[in-house]
Amino acid sequence: MTRVAPGSLLDIEHLDVTEMAALLKHARRMNPVKTTPLLRGKRVLLLFYEASTRTRSSFEIAAKSMGAMTTLVLSSGSSIEKGESLLDTGYTLEAVGADVLVIRHPAAGAPLMIARRLKIPVINAGDGMHEHPSQALLDAYTILAHKKTLQGLKIVILGDIYHSRVARSAIHLLSKFGSHVTLCGPPELLPELATCLAPRLEIARTAEDAIRGADVVMVLRLQKERLAGMKIQLEDYVARYQMTMARLRLAKRDALVMHPGPIIRGLELTWEVADCPQSVIVEEVRNGVRVRMAILARALKKAR
Amino acid sequence: MTRVAPGSLLDIEHLDVTEMAALLKHARRMNPVKTTPLLRGKRVLLLFYEASTRTRSSFEIAAKSMGAMTTLVLSSGSSIEKGESLLDTGYTLEAVGADVLVIRHPAAGAPLMIARRLKIPVINAGDGMHEHPSQALLDAYTILAHKKTLQGLKIVILGDIYHSRVARSAIHLLSKFGSHVTLCGPPELLPELATCLAPRLEIARTAEDAIRGADVVMVLRLQKERLAGMKIQLEDYVARYQMTMARLRLAKRDALVMHPGPIIRGLELTWEVADCPQSVIVEEVRNGVRVRMAILARALKKAR
Amino acid sequence: MTRVAPGSLLDIEHLDVTEMAALLKHARRMNPVKTTPLLRGKRVLLLFYEASTRTRSSFEIAAKSMGAMTTLVLSSGSSIEKGESLLDTGYTLEAVGADVLVIRHPAAGAPLMIARRLKIPVINAGDGMHEHPSQALLDAYTILAHKKTLQGLKIVILGDIYHSRVARSAIHLLSKFGSHVTLCGPPELLPELATCLAPRLEIARTAEDAIRGADVVMVLRLQKERLAGMKIQLEDYVARYQMTMARLRLAKRDALVMHPGPIIRGLELTWEVADCPQSVIVEEVRNGVRVRMAILARALKKAR
Repeated sequence: MTRVAPGSLLDIEHLDVTEMAALLKHARRMNPVKTTPLLRGKRVLLLFYEASTRTRSSFEIAAKSMGAMTTLVLSSGSSIEKGESLLDTGYTLEAVGADVLVIRHPAAGAPLMIARRLKIPVINAGDGMHEHPSQALLDAYTILAHKKTLQGLKIVILGDIYHSRVARSAIHLLSKFGSHVTLCGPPELLPELATCLAPRLEIARTAEDAIRGADVVMVLRLQKERLAGMKIQLEDYVARYQMTMARLRLAKRDALVMHPGPIIRGLELTWEVADCPQSVIVEEVRNGVRVRMAILARALKKAR
Repeated sequence: MTRVAPGSLLDIEHLDVTEMAALLKHARRMNPVKTTPLLRGKRVLLLFYEASTRTRSSFEIAAKSMGAMTTLVLSSGSSIEKGESLLDTGYTLEAVGADVLVIRHPAAGAPLMIARRLKIPVINAGDGMHEHPSQALLDAYTILAHKKTLQGLKIVILGDIYHSRVARSAIHLLSKFGSHVTLCGPPELLPELATCLAPRLEIARTAEDAIRGADVVMVLRLQKERLAGMKIQLEDYVARYQMTMARLRLAKRDALVMHPGPIIRGLELTWEVADCPQSVIVEEVRNGVRVRMAILARALKKAR
Repeated sequence: MTRVAPGSLLDIEHLDVTEMAALLKHARRMNPVKTTPLLRGKRVLLLFYEASTRTRSSFEIAAKSMGAMTTLVLSSGSSIEKGESLLDTGYTLEAVGADVLVIRHPAAGAPLMIARRLKIPVINAGDGMHEHPSQALLDAYTILAHKKTLQGLKIVILGDIYHSRVARSAIHLLSKFGSHVTLCGPPELLPELATCLAPRLEIARTAEDAIRGADVVMVLRLQKERLAGMKIQLEDYVARYQMTMARLRLAKRDALVMHPGPIIRGLELTWEVADCPQSVIVEEVRNGVRVRMAILARALKKAR
């Protein structure tokens, strides 16, 4: 990954452990409740080609809390033609005075493509089925608020691994930090090939096998329409992979339940699990702001 | 209405006169033209599930004028499923750092439901056919800028009472302050049952009967599609209930004409009425900002 | 053009050279990278009835860079009925506390109509096929960053003149400053009548004739759907009017290539031309911010 502006955050795959640790440490010093003038006069451009409530408002609030001004540009469509105009949109937003560009795009690689052409740092807020690096960092932050270290933890990622950029970023991060990651889901949503993503990945085909003895269970969002045309039926999926209190009891007593949101109660997890004491789903959202503050501060400091 | 955060404003029905009077007094001291740092560092989340120009921009400007930062989240859809995710959206926005949540939702009761689950104050910016409390307060403010008191005034509410959350909030407020409220509209849009909403409500079936001797005429918005399948035709409605200069002359000489907007000139009122000296329609909008400043200040002060 | 608030900017046609020169001079002193408190406490309402990325974000960043607060109101539809409600939307936004209204509307004349009714200055951010004055001013600014004067320059406007508000504003501005303007395009997109827009306009029917010896070539955006039902086919248009490197070589050696954006590479201009050293397309966007800062400062100073 050559020639992107320093301070860019495009993926976890190419980020080294030292840098991630520094980001997480920086996030710990951030106070999301107090407004600071750290980034006063800086312009954060939020370019969202896909719907987003939590990621967008989280970045927006992170930026504003440090005194930066934000400008939101929404768009839609994803043809090759639009792919070309994405480049020119990038040039435009840079020219209009953006100091950093936060981009969500349905096409994997779009943030990298644009980062290679711009002089300002680019932050990937989710690109297609590729990565969602700020989510992985806030998940790491959340786990570390409860566990001493990521190393050696048994962490289960449960559900639709195949379509999930959240899973991909989490797998890279957790593997780099030495966690034992177990993936679990039906074959159509979790091909054997997935183990090639990182060293020491394991696959379990039943939720029970996966969750037994786990320190953390990350439940992924299930989009019903993704099951269309597959062998597995929705009732089947729920019966076999839904995160329930019974299954949670197989994990360690102090295991955490995580979910990147938005959750669909009754689908990939039950109401009880969503609201149980071990669920840190809302905490993840809360930590997202300070992690994104650190990401923005890094982007704008390095770029100076 | 138990266990919602203090400073919430969910309806007028359960708000007592003392508190409303305090809010109106506070609004009088607000200066919407001057920016103050009163709410500096506070985060106002605007969650709008329905289109809105005036209410949304009014709350937004009120917040920004007191130095708060605003974040707008738009959405759509209203199924039960979405109703569930509304709750989780609330958790998310609270976790992301909202100090107060301003919500408009097509389902009556949505703000209350969410307020019962959150620790932050919730302000109802209009919920289905239920209430629109900030509108009633700004209307009271506007009347009081011209009349000494609300007590004993003859106030007519004209039009589609049935579907109107504005009417419901106004009826509660005005009755509590001792106004004599007369409702007027065709039976389909004003069932007899409406008199149960508050004590001493009267119904008049002709606009002439209603308006005669009135101090204030509040004209409601008519959505044409609401007449579909009803006995009354649009031409009929206009002929019998449109607010005209001729009808206005039946009211007191210094009667006020009000409308929550958006108005449709030529439908529920004539061009002449909209622009006549007695019309305070634009003034209502202007007063909306200072009333919402008082509402936000109350929410964030009590919550501190 | 009587009785609009001073500081309004509705078109170039009725703006005199002295005032434009003052605006351009003011823009030169603006520093878009540094935030100033020049307009602190002022409220800029952005009312956009048409999609816009660059114009909207440019005005928004210009306003915020001078400490003003911005509120964005988006809308859609353009019937006569909506035309009426445009007026009331204007009243509403003024009442809500707007100090200046920036409006883009699909109907030519909408900004003027509304400006005549409001007490606050109105800035036209593009109205139908009429004018786009801030674009013409930023184009003038961009040319003057490279050339000593506009007077006597040979400037070509190439493409769909007929539908272009950018062309109309540029023609008025450049003619007033004494440039020699040549229009070029197929008859359907450039009727002979166009020469009546300003004195000394010339029409060339081949790109080669037009570009030969030019100091500046302004390429216009082509919307494919505009060719529907016309004699000229898309391939034909591209062959005869696309801006290519070969055609650019006919112009002066230091000729500038301009385009208001968004560009469609491969349609009205080639990739090579878009990125060639003579292209100032991105520079136009960059200059847009300081020119709009000057426009807003003028609006709010004169209105005070």
